[in-house]
Amino acid sequence: MIRAILLGSGYVGTYLAVGLERIKKGLVGKYGIPLAKYPLPYKIEDINIVSAYDIDSSKVGKTLFDAGAEIFGKEYDLPETLKDIPIKKGIHLKSAEGLPIKATGLEEGRSVKDAIDELVNEWAELKPDVIINVITTEEGRAYKSKEEAVSAILDGKAPATHAYAYAATQYAKQSGRKVTFVNAIPTPVANNPGLIELFNETGAIAFGDDGATGATPLTSDLLEHMAQRNRFVEFVVQFNIGGNTDFLALTQPKRNKMKENTKSSMVADILGYDAPHYIKPTGYLQPLGDKKYVAMHLEWISFNGFRDSLFISARINDSPALAGMLVDLIRLGKIAVDKGLSGTVYEVNAFFMKKPGPEGAKNIAKTHAYMQLLNWLGLSRYQ
Amino acid sequence: MIRAILLGSGYVGTYLAVGLERIKKGLVGKYGIPLAKYPLPYKIEDINIVSAYDIDSSKVGKTLFDAGAEIFGKEYDLPETLKDIPIKKGIHLKSAEGLPIKATGLEEGRSVKDAIDELVNEWAELKPDVIINVITTEEGRAYKSKEEAVSAILDGKAPATHAYAYAATQYAKQSGRKVTFVNAIPTPVANNPGLIELFNETGAIAFGDDGATGATPLTSDLLEHMAQRNRFVEFVVQFNIGGNTDFLALTQPKRNKMKENTKSSMVADILGYDAPHYIKPTGYLQPLGDKKYVAMHLEWISFNGFRDSLFISARINDSPALAGMLVDLIRLGKIAVDKGLSGTVYEVNAFFMKKPGPEGAKNIAKTHAYMQLLNWLGLSRYQ
Amino acid sequence: MIRAILLGSGYVGTYLAVGLERIKKGLVGKYGIPLAKYPLPYKIEDINIVSAYDIDSSKVGKTLFDAGAEIFGKEYDLPETLKDIPIKKGIHLKSAEGLPIKATGLEEGRSVKDAIDELVNEWAELKPDVIINVITTEEGRAYKSKEEAVSAILDGKAPATHAYAYAATQYAKQSGRKVTFVNAIPTPVANNPGLIELFNETGAIAFGDDGATGATPLTSDLLEHMAQRNRFVEFVVQFNIGGNTDFLALTQPKRNKMKENTKSSMVADILGYDAPHYIKPTGYLQPLGDKKYVAMHLEWISFNGFRDSLFISARINDSPALAGMLVDLIRLGKIAVDKGLSGTVYEVNAFFMKKPGPEGAKNIAKTHAYMQLLNWLGLSRYQ
Amino acid sequence: MIRAILLGSGYVGTYLAVGLERIKKGLVGKYGIPLAKYPLPYKIEDINIVSAYDIDSSKVGKTLFDAGAEIFGKEYDLPETLKDIPIKKGIHLKSAEGLPIKATGLEEGRSVKDAIDELVNEWAELKPDVIINVITTEEGRAYKSKEEAVSAILDGKAPATHAYAYAATQYAKQSGRKVTFVNAIPTPVANNPGLIELFNETGAIAFGDDGATGATPLTSDLLEHMAQRNRFVEFVVQFNIGGNTDFLALTQPKRNKMKENTKSSMVADILGYDAPHYIKPTGYLQPLGDKKYVAMHLEWISFNGFRDSLFISARINDSPALAGMLVDLIRLGKIAVDKGLSGTVYEVNAFFMKKPGPEGAKNIAKTHAYMQLLNWLGLSRYQ
Repeated sequence: MIRAILLGSGYVGTYLAVGLERIKKGLVGKYGIPLAKYPLPYKIEDINIVSAYDIDSSKVGKTLFDAGAEIFGKEYDLPETLKDIPIKKGIHLKSAEGLPIKATGLEEGRSVKDAIDELVNEWAELKPDVIINVITTEEGRAYKSKEEAVSAILDGKAPATHAYAYAATQYAKQSGRKVTFVNAIPTPVANNPGLIELFNETGAIAFGDDGATGATPLTSDLLEHMAQRNRFVEFVVQFNIGGNTDFLALTQPKRNKMKENTKSSMVADILGYDAPHYIKPTGYLQPLGDKKYVAMHLEWISFNGFRDSLFISARINDSPALAGMLVDLIRLGKIAVDKGLSGTVYEVNAFFMKKPGPEGAKNIAKTHAYMQLLNWLGLSRYQ
Repeated sequence: MIRAILLGSGYVGTYLAVGLERIKKGLVGKYGIPLAKYPLPYKIEDINIVSAYDIDSSKVGKTLFDAGAEIFGKEYDLPETLKDIPIKKGIHLKSAEGLPIKATGLEEGRSVKDAIDELVNEWAELKPDVIINVITTEEGRAYKSKEEAVSAILDGKAPATHAYAYAATQYAKQSGRKVTFVNAIPTPVANNPGLIELFNETGAIAFGDDGATGATPLTSDLLEHMAQRNRFVEFVVQFNIGGNTDFLALTQPKRNKMKENTKSSMVADILGYDAPHYIKPTGYLQPLGDKKYVAMHLEWISFNGFRDSLFISARINDSPALAGMLVDLIRLGKIAVDKGLSGTVYEVNAFFMKKPGPEGAKNIAKTHAYMQLLNWLGLSRYQ
Repeated sequence: MIRAILLGSGYVGTYLAVGLERIKKGLVGKYGIPLAKYPLPYKIEDINIVSAYDIDSSKVGKTLFDAGAEIFGKEYDLPETLKDIPIKKGIHLKSAEGLPIKATGLEEGRSVKDAIDELVNEWAELKPDVIINVITTEEGRAYKSKEEAVSAILDGKAPATHAYAYAATQYAKQSGRKVTFVNAIPTPVANNPGLIELFNETGAIAFGDDGATGATPLTSDLLEHMAQRNRFVEFVVQFNIGGNTDFLALTQPKRNKMKENTKSSMVADILGYDAPHYIKPTGYLQPLGDKKYVAMHLEWISFNGFRDSLFISARINDSPALAGMLVDLIRLGKIAVDKGLSGTVYEVNAFFMKKPGPEGAKNIAKTHAYMQLLNWLGLSRYQ
Repeated sequence: MIRAILLGSGYVGTYLAVGLERIKKGLVGKYGIPLAKYPLPYKIEDINIVSAYDIDSSKVGKTLFDAGAEIFGKEYDLPETLKDIPIKKGIHLKSAEGLPIKATGLEEGRSVKDAIDELVNEWAELKPDVIINVITTEEGRAYKSKEEAVSAILDGKAPATHAYAYAATQYAKQSGRKVTFVNAIPTPVANNPGLIELFNETGAIAFGDDGATGATPLTSDLLEHMAQRNRFVEFVVQFNIGGNTDFLALTQPKRNKMKENTKSSMVADILGYDAPHYIKPTGYLQPLGDKKYVAMHLEWISFNGFRDSLFISARINDSPALAGMLVDLIRLGKIAVDKGLSGTVYEVNAFFMKKPGPEGAKNIAKTHAYMQLLNWLGLSRYQ
């Protein structure tokens, strides 16, 4: 059994919980979970989400069943087991600033340290093996050292993600339990030397950053396809627009910058030259909902100087794609813990993350990262 | 130095010769040649095309300079060295039947055997290391044994491709020289047990079948992208339309069937299930010229049963893409010969061919085939 | 009140009946009905489908409620009123040949004339104002004269559509009632001089041919967009693939030819020159269902010789689009009858049909046809 | 003969001059000029560009031949007659602020009034019939009255476009010649009550605003296509990215806002409801050059509640499209002057402009605007 905690009960977190319970009840196939077909030490059904955390005051105190009913409507076949997963009050630290949410936070009326301590005490009872961060993208910077990190966090100058990551390490330290913190958003954790120092020191693990779903991994593999044929890519355009909270949040320039950073690092890493590119979340349009629209265009020079053109249009359900990956990341988090690792794990990050940590690590094509991951797990693609 | 012979002086053959000579003169970059960046034993500049063969009576007796001038026009900067590559009369055997070409063939007025003998004698003087087959797609079947193959060929019941392949083996046998026959069209050679027996016996090599350019390798890598995420692909549509002779030829159902065969084998091999698909050359429209239009659409089931959609539109210069690959296939043909191999070489075919021989071999994703090829060559992707 | 009869109870016919009854119950909006917003003499709710006809032996004897349940499933909110619309046995005449249907027909075991007489007698009791032909596309030719038409029909050498059209005229003649025959498939009726002579003579009306839904009217308006800017269209490609019975039927070359004929006439009519084009139903792929995939590509020359490119990808529900138009065609059929017209009505056909009759009529852009239709109805666009 | 002056010698202006001279020499067809096929009182060859104005110090003092050589390169067949068109110094007023241009302006070292006076004096000698404004998009507001306009302009608080428009009216007033000012950029002139009062008073004419090229008129006609079928459009996304100076300028929010304003007004005007939309210039990517990439997506509800999807990808040469329209706008400017009109002319604006003046005028579908324009000219579409 794997005990997991969700930070954030928005679309991604709710889809993850709903999908897991529906799989357990045999209501839906195991599609969208990359490693579902391979014999891992932990089955999908072994995952048990023990609690969620949120700062939306209209959610705190309810359960993931309520969150699911809000999204899917009353007609949907929601497993009753979701009623056993409470939504507790989390750390805010302005992570919802500017969004149409009435926010509340554990730190209200006390110090950040006290809020973190309370969290760590709760976790000591919940005994999570894996903690998944799927809160809304927030601005955040990398710290050079553990000291710089801790000081920013305790002074309330760090984003909620960093406070949560710190709490995870303190939970590991105090409880003596191993834990993996999965950072599925762009705010740097696995790419954050100061935080990774903390994880290393406490025997905890951080996976990250920014779950690789949607158009970016596709772009990664397309660029590899070009590179393998030695085509000269003249430019890459990739537009994204959606109607969920994450796209709304990304209309704020600082949050958008976080996202752009994690998306663009792959071009030079894969092609070997920094082809001119425009790759970023482009806008918000409510009726698109969680099913974003992606438009891509690239041109390249082929043999004897001929120019070819490619256009892609796609509609992709944003949150389920990430939720499916989290199913594996939870299992891999426990596997990594069982292996006695600490710090971060490039072999996992390289496939699952848009900006795989540690800082400075190469952003190789996802198709190669997949093979390396299988290798790390002692599995093979065509067996 | 590598001595190469071209069977067919259409778009692909002419682009190959023109591109090679322009590269030698520094007029154009080495784009579209997959292995251009790696240190192979033979440089691109080492390739020397010594002759072309054709059955179009308006071309026989001229040179590849004339063929190039016909395609590129008088204003184009065509290297004078192309005047040294003659277009000799080749074997017809109805390969141009139904096409708007006044055809002629070496076999006219004599037996097929005599025509092949003449060819073998010519080759004994031309001393080719590699023979490249880029004639128009023709119908042809696989033979169970060497005897069945030879009998069909000498009786004039085999397509020109098979007569050429047989001639290559006889050239190898009689001259004692090693040779690689590169079959870039769908008519089965590397997937033809009877012919491969002949190649094995004479110490010759056949690469094939059907050069993997255009939309098919892209589809291959896209399907792998889906498989790696365990998405359930509901269907795949891939339309192709162009305005060159090859597309015109493919409006004939028998030739089209050849092409459909080589294109469809990958779906089940990569996904592990035979997702419903419509993948074939769709039509001919003259103004598109050699730059074909490709339209693709696929849908898949993601986590928790959500459905995503992808649409691709592309314009791809058909012949240059194949010509670029032939530059490597020529070099790999010589390398394989140097290695003392005979028969066919899966590691080469798997990346470069739509239907990699030998018969029954798995059609893996191109991205993996690329890594296997590098491995076969003792090279690595991120070095 | 308008009394209507459906020939064919496949997707289009069933969607029409289901949609109408759901509109009457206020379950769904009036979208997809072109004239829904205008004040016509007849309301949508005035339409009463009194019977359907089919030759599928698994349907004959049932009701449109059963046909709806087959398509939409048991969970769907199907109005009970559909149980009042019987599916009677229709005329077959090989219209389902080659399709996976166990067919039966009124003409079995007797002459075609007797079968038609029975139909006319039934109609005399059902008293239809409008008869809608939505059977599967079948091959059929134009007749030069009434005599040629009648002789082909009574000899059993005409397709079912023509037998039905003849029956409509005989019903008009014998009952003295006015009737409009709406031919929504490509088999020529409104473009058939022999048949139109019959309609004229009996005071009946035929609208046709081939309901203008899907990509063809869009192409029409796109070509007009190009023509209005004097862009020189170099070529037009339009692929269509679907998974309904109609696409399956169109894999038969003779039926496909019918469709290609009605689709292509517009290019020269709108542009003023016959730009090279490939516009036809391209294939059948079952999982696409009734929601076809359309891919289009055109290029044009702009000012000072520059070349622009356009690519379109679409997924369009085929049958609902036609069903929505039929709602108006039924109302217009009654309006035309009230106006005392006979023969065919170009003003109606020009907007609603892919190949508007009478024979030789110009296939103008749909956007202009729409304005002419409004004008014919005494309405205006921006009122 | 029509005497024309160009304000701005960038891509659009240069393409216009180059295309016109090449048409006169018979080097290129008359494509992309909407009315080229109709018998207008003035032929295309009647247009004579007598001077250009610019504020780029690297251009001032040269000719349009130099500007053309800069864009097209030395190999291009540039007519010598372009050497007769000087590039004179124009009014700057910060119109190039923030752009990588070393700007200079007539107003340097003197009052705006003096600068305008000098311009008016020059024009008195050049005797233009039409003045075309194709400077880079700049911020600007509408004035309620003539007085407010003149005061803003003379105080140097108005953009260059307004100073030029004012100069045109003063030229008309002082010289007694009729003149049409064609405003092809978004900065409001025809939609500017204060300026239109000035034009009316001086017997001058203003066409505008923002030449309707690219994706916007296509979207207009697509929306009309939806409206004519009573489809309920759920949303419209339209991305635009290019690599010319105009796209670079539009990365500045204030300029972008100007563009967004002129693009969005059509949705509600055509559909009758303001469907949610994201329609704006999205970004700048240098290698795209003047050939912008447009990506569009819309979805709508069809009959019985079914949802359809449409995706468009296009590459469109931005400047030639506008240049072709300007050829007609110059001729229409002279025709309007000959008709004795003053102020602005909705019939012209409605087809040629993204935001047709006067202020408050309806933004009807371009296809209808085209028919109204023909009607205004006494011409018909299918003659």
